[in-house]
Amino acid sequence: MVKLSDIKSPKDLKQLNTDDLNSLSDQIREFLIDKVSKTGGHLASNLGIVEITLAMHKVFNSPIDKFIFDVGHQSYVHKILTGRQEGFDHLRQYKGMSGFPKVKESKHDCFETGHSTTSLSAAFGMAKARDLKGENNNIVAVIGDGALTGGMAYEALNNIGASKTKMIIILNDNGMSISPNIGSVSNHLVNLRTSKKYINTKTKINRRLGKSKTGQSIHRALHNIKENIKYSVIEEGGVLFEELGFTYLGPVDGHSVESMIEVLERAKSLNKPVIIHAITQKGKGYIIAEKAPNKFHGPSAFDPDTGLAISKKPEHTFSQVMGDKALEMGKEHKDIVAITAAMTEATGLYPFAQNFPNRFFDVGIAEQHAVTFAAGLARGGMHPIVAIYSSFLQRSYDQVMMDVCLQNLPVIFAIDRAGFVGADGETHNGMFDISYLSAMPNMTILCPADGNDLQAAMDYAYELNSPVAIRYPRGACKFKSGLHKTFVENELICNGSDIEILAVGPCIDDAMLIKDYLDDYSVGIRKITKAMPFDLQLEGNKLYVSIEDGSLVGGFGQILKANNNNVEILSFAWPRKFIEHGSNDQIKQEYKLDAKSIAERIKAELERKA
Amino acid sequence: MVKLSDIKSPKDLKQLNTDDLNSLSDQIREFLIDKVSKTGGHLASNLGIVEITLAMHKVFNSPIDKFIFDVGHQSYVHKILTGRQEGFDHLRQYKGMSGFPKVKESKHDCFETGHSTTSLSAAFGMAKARDLKGENNNIVAVIGDGALTGGMAYEALNNIGASKTKMIIILNDNGMSISPNIGSVSNHLVNLRTSKKYINTKTKINRRLGKSKTGQSIHRALHNIKENIKYSVIEEGGVLFEELGFTYLGPVDGHSVESMIEVLERAKSLNKPVIIHAITQKGKGYIIAEKAPNKFHGPSAFDPDTGLAISKKPEHTFSQVMGDKALEMGKEHKDIVAITAAMTEATGLYPFAQNFPNRFFDVGIAEQHAVTFAAGLARGGMHPIVAIYSSFLQRSYDQVMMDVCLQNLPVIFAIDRAGFVGADGETHNGMFDISYLSAMPNMTILCPADGNDLQAAMDYAYELNSPVAIRYPRGACKFKSGLHKTFVENELICNGSDIEILAVGPCIDDAMLIKDYLDDYSVGIRKITKAMPFDLQLEGNKLYVSIEDGSLVGGFGQILKANNNNVEILSFAWPRKFIEHGSNDQIKQEYKLDAKSIAERIKAELERKA
Repeated sequence: MVKLSDIKSPKDLKQLNTDDLNSLSDQIREFLIDKVSKTGGHLASNLGIVEITLAMHKVFNSPIDKFIFDVGHQSYVHKILTGRQEGFDHLRQYKGMSGFPKVKESKHDCFETGHSTTSLSAAFGMAKARDLKGENNNIVAVIGDGALTGGMAYEALNNIGASKTKMIIILNDNGMSISPNIGSVSNHLVNLRTSKKYINTKTKINRRLGKSKTGQSIHRALHNIKENIKYSVIEEGGVLFEELGFTYLGPVDGHSVESMIEVLERAKSLNKPVIIHAITQKGKGYIIAEKAPNKFHGPSAFDPDTGLAISKKPEHTFSQVMGDKALEMGKEHKDIVAITAAMTEATGLYPFAQNFPNRFFDVGIAEQHAVTFAAGLARGGMHPIVAIYSSFLQRSYDQVMMDVCLQNLPVIFAIDRAGFVGADGETHNGMFDISYLSAMPNMTILCPADGNDLQAAMDYAYELNSPVAIRYPRGACKFKSGLHKTFVENELICNGSDIEILAVGPCIDDAMLIKDYLDDYSVGIRKITKAMPFDLQLEGNKLYVSIEDGSLVGGFGQILKANNNNVEILSFAWPRKFIEHGSNDQIKQEYKLDAKSIAERIKAELERKA
Repeated sequence: MVKLSDIKSPKDLKQLNTDDLNSLSDQIREFLIDKVSKTGGHLASNLGIVEITLAMHKVFNSPIDKFIFDVGHQSYVHKILTGRQEGFDHLRQYKGMSGFPKVKESKHDCFETGHSTTSLSAAFGMAKARDLKGENNNIVAVIGDGALTGGMAYEALNNIGASKTKMIIILNDNGMSISPNIGSVSNHLVNLRTSKKYINTKTKINRRLGKSKTGQSIHRALHNIKENIKYSVIEEGGVLFEELGFTYLGPVDGHSVESMIEVLERAKSLNKPVIIHAITQKGKGYIIAEKAPNKFHGPSAFDPDTGLAISKKPEHTFSQVMGDKALEMGKEHKDIVAITAAMTEATGLYPFAQNFPNRFFDVGIAEQHAVTFAAGLARGGMHPIVAIYSSFLQRSYDQVMMDVCLQNLPVIFAIDRAGFVGADGETHNGMFDISYLSAMPNMTILCPADGNDLQAAMDYAYELNSPVAIRYPRGACKFKSGLHKTFVENELICNGSDIEILAVGPCIDDAMLIKDYLDDYSVGIRKITKAMPFDLQLEGNKLYVSIEDGSLVGGFGQILKANNNNVEILSFAWPRKFIEHGSNDQIKQEYKLDAKSIAERIKAELERKA
């Protein structure tokens, strides 16, 4: 029997039979569970896409044929089959393999994806480029049912369907995405799934027919079957995609390599846009993940036998404090409503959702709608809390500006994962929020340093009654239960005559360390809790130092410098590049943004001046 | 017969009969043509929505019932009927009435819209707020078929359809939007339109039945008719909206006040989400606009008898130079492709589209898809030019960042309408592009000062082979035909020992004027053609002055200051607020950003220092 370790490239799959491929499926699942349990990473979605990926590499010829994986974290099996098994020992670790497709990593990765719902537009572009070059390779996009709630998918489907361009979309439908799907398209998919007329039943008929007829007849039989499938699907309500101009093939059992191969062969033979609707199960084959696919969406290292996390959960996280505070505000204020874009648990809003189901809205992966919907709620007299990760809020830049800020509406943006995020890397870092929000008129940007600050910031935001963005990083936070602080703006924590460090939010911790490193000097510290608007008139002969977990360009330090042309300011922030994955300590050291490096640069500057 | 001038508020419509309303339709059209021919403004779309708006105000009770007009420029008739007829004498002029809904302007304007496709999300938010408050008013969104190509519409439809919340969407389908629609949804609508089973035929049957039956039976008959309509619509392919969870009523003749009133009454009686599909004609009733609806989308002042513009067209505009250059590059380089989001003519791409239909893509109002599609084309070996207005590119902030910049792909963004735009005002000003693009790694921002610079910038962008944004303002530009310049980065035009003005792009013209005002001083001028990245190390005792037509926060001046902490820099740019409509001169004077005001402030600063 074939060994997974012998599969060095997709070519090694070409001669394998169904039994071999089924064996490989099992080995891939073992491999995934073994490796991801050690490093952490995206597990459940990859367990769900094993057979689909195997079939893709069996039927198509990568890298001539192009595969685009939506929200690239479902590309692990693809990585396993394209010569990157060894990379999994250092998956998502410093200098190790990325958890997303990376063009530099392999010729089999043709388009980088991290944010949701981009695959169809990208694939359509590649298909049009192919046509213009007079080539004839296949372009295959794989998109989950969750990503399909994003509006971009529809913009792309609208264009692709009308264009009649040859390309294949595999809808990997596990019926849940990260959070359960909400929306009418989701209902539509459920109708299709429950039709029970899976293509694998059909294909059995197909093979039976094939054995008793001539080649010519087989072709005709296949054609009839295809027509029948189309008919049965329309009967079941699958018209949505047909109306959009696609040939719809499905539903097909996404865990049958055989069925997937057949349906992909069929799609390949059609010279037009095709949607294959594959039904899969998130976490498939790992019973613990099947039962809690949400928990195993992106776990950190865990014990594969029990599924329990290896490292202890922090006592408090910013997300959890935000969610608990939202709940408390919901109890106190009837106008508080909360909105998430498919991230109920990750943003901490689960308790709010449980307590106020009517005042809680999960709009699916649809950040643009989430924000304008919030604007509508605010115009209707509500006070919405919109909890979105920093890098995903980028999707609704225009809506934040035009629908919330222009009308000066009271919407509180709870911006999670602001700053460096660690293992997810380039596409998930929340570096840019201060840069993109600071220019927006009427917007206030708050930067709590700990859980108690966050609580206070939320109360303050509620009272402001205008657009407020509260940014806080991923992970653990300091928090004292029962301590109810009042929001204080940009407080001077301690005075110093040589140096004043202006530390944005949680960078206050580094500021304290830096002060320790600089014990020959008189070091003052100011905690920046309000990054915009602010009125800090710096003066005197001190050296001012700003530190923030965000972009140097457009960040707090830049604004501070522009407003204080007359004093010397050293700004420490992320340079103008995409910052790769790794641990906080490793990456900060690499960019010389750790406390020690910053202290050394301050010292050098003071010595230079002396 | 009723006089339009007697209609002071929607209440005045309540007692009018059909003949009165038809007469009002005629008077409104005359009023629109008369007024807009003098001031300029959005004409064709408002001529198309006369009867729909009349019926809305007849059937519903604004401001208790809420109307949200998508891309608010179709709200003129609504303004006419809500006590703002006098405002049309100063429509879109300095301190005059806005061309868009403004909450401060009237209690009948409940949500401000300028960018496309926001109405459904906003209306849904207002509907949910209504439900939470236990109220029962109606929420009506009006959206054009063009706006329906935007992905946000689908995100909203997906949520609304599943929610079963009572609200009404009027799809104002004129079959063309600004440019002709492209896409499968558009095809779907065409199918519905050509079904010829308009509701107004049906409603005739309805009335006939009503006369011969009892009230009870009428109700039943109505119900049957509704069922029949639904059936006939499904038969014709109208299932798309039904699949999304809506009750679909239509198609209905949007130019029959009577039919519109009936269908709105019917929709009002349903306690669920309803889509009314109204067929209209852009420019309706003004034969010149009917024939050239595109030209009369947003004309400047014109002669109502001939339709000819009153003021002479400028010899050259930035848009036209960009489009001509794109065509030239298309001829020279086989990999050049061009993309627009429903703005083929306005962006100047019409000649390219005519010459290279296979290499030209109008994706509809779908900026997100446009950008990621371009990234896919670039990955496939093409070199796309994406022409989008500055303020609309905000819609694709995340795609520019994550799909183009992250992968360092060669996409040229031709950013039209950068800076102050004039009469369209707050929602259309392109103030923020330098702020939002400058933090993006790998992005180059070019700022040509005139048409020849623009040509040179496009050649330079092509050679760079990485993401480039070329920003240029609305309207006329200096241009010498036959002069082929080479791109020069941030050139020192003349040297000066007291002052150096760094003028971004076309601000060079103001810089020249300022130099004249300051003839007692030695004034140098540097033309900033590359706003990012740049390496300008300023030194010496001069006063440096930056001028840009963009946001102060995050703009060139701010970055320049942050990079040159040691010299004195005065920055002139738009303050952190939304800038209202008016002429360039008026608004610049108001904000003291005209050449004379800037010169005075420079003088004052020099005198203060002396």
